[in-house]
Amino acid sequence: MTATSHTSADTPLSYEQAGVNYDLIDPLKVAAQRAAAATAGHLPAHGFQEVPASRGESAYVVDVGPFYLASIVECLGSKALVADEMQRLTGRSYYAGIAQDTIAMAVNDLITVGATPLVVQAYWAAGGSEWFKDAERAQALVQGWKAACDVCGVAWGGGETPALAGIVEAGRIDLAASCTGIISPKTRLSVGDDLGPGDAIVLLASSGIHANGLSLARKLAERLPDGYLTEIEPGLTYGDALLAPTTLYSPVTEALASAGVKLNYCANITGHGWRKLLRHPKALTYRIRNVPPVPAVLKFMAQQARHDDREAYSTLNMGAGFALFVPAEQAARTVEIARAAGVDAWVAGSVEAGPKQLLVEPLSLRFSDDDLQLR
Amino acid sequence: MTATSHTSADTPLSYEQAGVNYDLIDPLKVAAQRAAAATAGHLPAHGFQEVPASRGESAYVVDVGPFYLASIVECLGSKALVADEMQRLTGRSYYAGIAQDTIAMAVNDLITVGATPLVVQAYWAAGGSEWFKDAERAQALVQGWKAACDVCGVAWGGGETPALAGIVEAGRIDLAASCTGIISPKTRLSVGDDLGPGDAIVLLASSGIHANGLSLARKLAERLPDGYLTEIEPGLTYGDALLAPTTLYSPVTEALASAGVKLNYCANITGHGWRKLLRHPKALTYRIRNVPPVPAVLKFMAQQARHDDREAYSTLNMGAGFALFVPAEQAARTVEIARAAGVDAWVAGSVEAGPKQLLVEPLSLRFSDDDLQLR
Repeated sequence: MTATSHTSADTPLSYEQAGVNYDLIDPLKVAAQRAAAATAGHLPAHGFQEVPASRGESAYVVDVGPFYLASIVECLGSKALVADEMQRLTGRSYYAGIAQDTIAMAVNDLITVGATPLVVQAYWAAGGSEWFKDAERAQALVQGWKAACDVCGVAWGGGETPALAGIVEAGRIDLAASCTGIISPKTRLSVGDDLGPGDAIVLLASSGIHANGLSLARKLAERLPDGYLTEIEPGLTYGDALLAPTTLYSPVTEALASAGVKLNYCANITGHGWRKLLRHPKALTYRIRNVPPVPAVLKFMAQQARHDDREAYSTLNMGAGFALFVPAEQAARTVEIARAAGVDAWVAGSVEAGPKQLLVEPLSLRFSDDDLQLR
Repeated sequence: MTATSHTSADTPLSYEQAGVNYDLIDPLKVAAQRAAAATAGHLPAHGFQEVPASRGESAYVVDVGPFYLASIVECLGSKALVADEMQRLTGRSYYAGIAQDTIAMAVNDLITVGATPLVVQAYWAAGGSEWFKDAERAQALVQGWKAACDVCGVAWGGGETPALAGIVEAGRIDLAASCTGIISPKTRLSVGDDLGPGDAIVLLASSGIHANGLSLARKLAERLPDGYLTEIEPGLTYGDALLAPTTLYSPVTEALASAGVKLNYCANITGHGWRKLLRHPKALTYRIRNVPPVPAVLKFMAQQARHDDREAYSTLNMGAGFALFVPAEQAARTVEIARAAGVDAWVAGSVEAGPKQLLVEPLSLRFSDDDLQLR
């Protein structure tokens, strides 16, 4: 892990080299998590209480009596930088897709705990009022945002559109979304209490890179002679492939709830790639027997970064954007319902008693708890 | 309104000159509001519905049956730039106060609709992992965030701490907070349905500039020979005065609810200064007979910017950070309860039948609907 700022196309490229140093962020995260946990005691004064198991999960859950309340704020990350560069190269605006990506970051996390997303708030912080001068881009952002809300059946409540010169870089925009939902009936809560041996692991298809791993993707573009315009398949550039909008998974989880399928746990496969399958603290073995097809853009990235399977599956979603842990007898139905909702799905493996580990049999990979320190 | 980039100390300084061009933002806002309003139809499918009167208010409200759900996301704005500069000048970290400011932006907006804030989520987007290297500053942010949650009796659910090099400027941080609360009992809803002639206007004291008007404050600092270290009172620098944390008003609104005081409407006095008193769409005349004392830092700013009262009261809070519209017979008690909760308060005026206008009698000011186009 050296601090070189230039890498040749023959050198493997790690996530740290791509610019994110988790070692510096993590001590703050730990302090913040500790301080946050200490505030749960305020809820009983209002007659409510937190669901302690949701601490460390993707969304925070409070028991408000007749149902649970779930909430979250999520950031798009650096995918907008790819959209900006592609707009410069092609003249097209990619912000409708970017809007969907931003909502997906929030909604796909919120639904992991069993919530129906109800309200989304927009956080669009531009580097200056000038950002909004490009009316086509601004309209794409608005229309894409609304379209994603329509897909998720969520109300767009409002939001903030500050111009933050001096904080956000000129010509850039910092995009985030907050989302509030409810878990009703309360039996839909899926923070892992019922997760256990025998559960099937159903993987839902990703549309590509989604919105994680973009720092790496951007670094790779710098090493390509044609950059984002490199064709990774006939007629498909690297940039266009990267900008495929993130799949919204709430239509699947809502359809499953309507059909009475019980989700014991869910994992949104974002940063840390498949290591996210190890998210729950229980000591369980997750055995994957079938690996979904890898989207062309992720195959290309892994090749270009000289990643072996271990590194690729620890960093990128590799075709699986979301994992559902369901009772074995509901696995086949889960796949059918997901497909009917427009998202490809596979029964990929199962949960077993055993040490905490993820075994990806077709690739002979093993990840253990040491590979994922999220809490 | 010229586009000069330099202004001498003798020239008046308008908000537009200070760097925010609302004309560019507003068409996007209008398009976004229209698209957002069109998504309300998704809620009935979940068995719920929006409270239409909350569109255009500071927080969005959904009727979820036993109570209302309110949610919001809010940005700190550019106050962190003042904290950064003061840290450079004094070596001290101001981020505990900045944390309170950020939470206040969200909580003080959420409570306007009658909500009890329950959960806050942190959005801390740094210009790079390096931001977190300054452990003292990072700890101040964490501890200040927790302390503000403690004051508001709110649970800190979690949040996002992305490192966004290329989007957020190096060495800077983009701070925001989302907040979710409930309105219970439902009679606490204060979106203005009962606002009307005869209501008293109670103003709650601000602690200073709060977190609005900072672009102007920063421009003024550039014109001062001693900048932020200019003493505005013996022993109090301009920078320190600006960085007084925003007052958190939820302890007041919660105490009022406990005491059975009915709030007919509330206005969080932020951007647009006292014009926010005209926020509700009803045609009503708001007559102010008593003007609260002006904090030294705001008096100093108005002087330095060569603002007359009209411009000062249209831009800054001028000592009133929050307005409560209550039945006249509860006005005196409202003041008592606010003071008991640690926030100074005054019965400042009343609501009358008449054209939509704000009359500030002691200063002979009149603002009409044309002066405030927020919706």
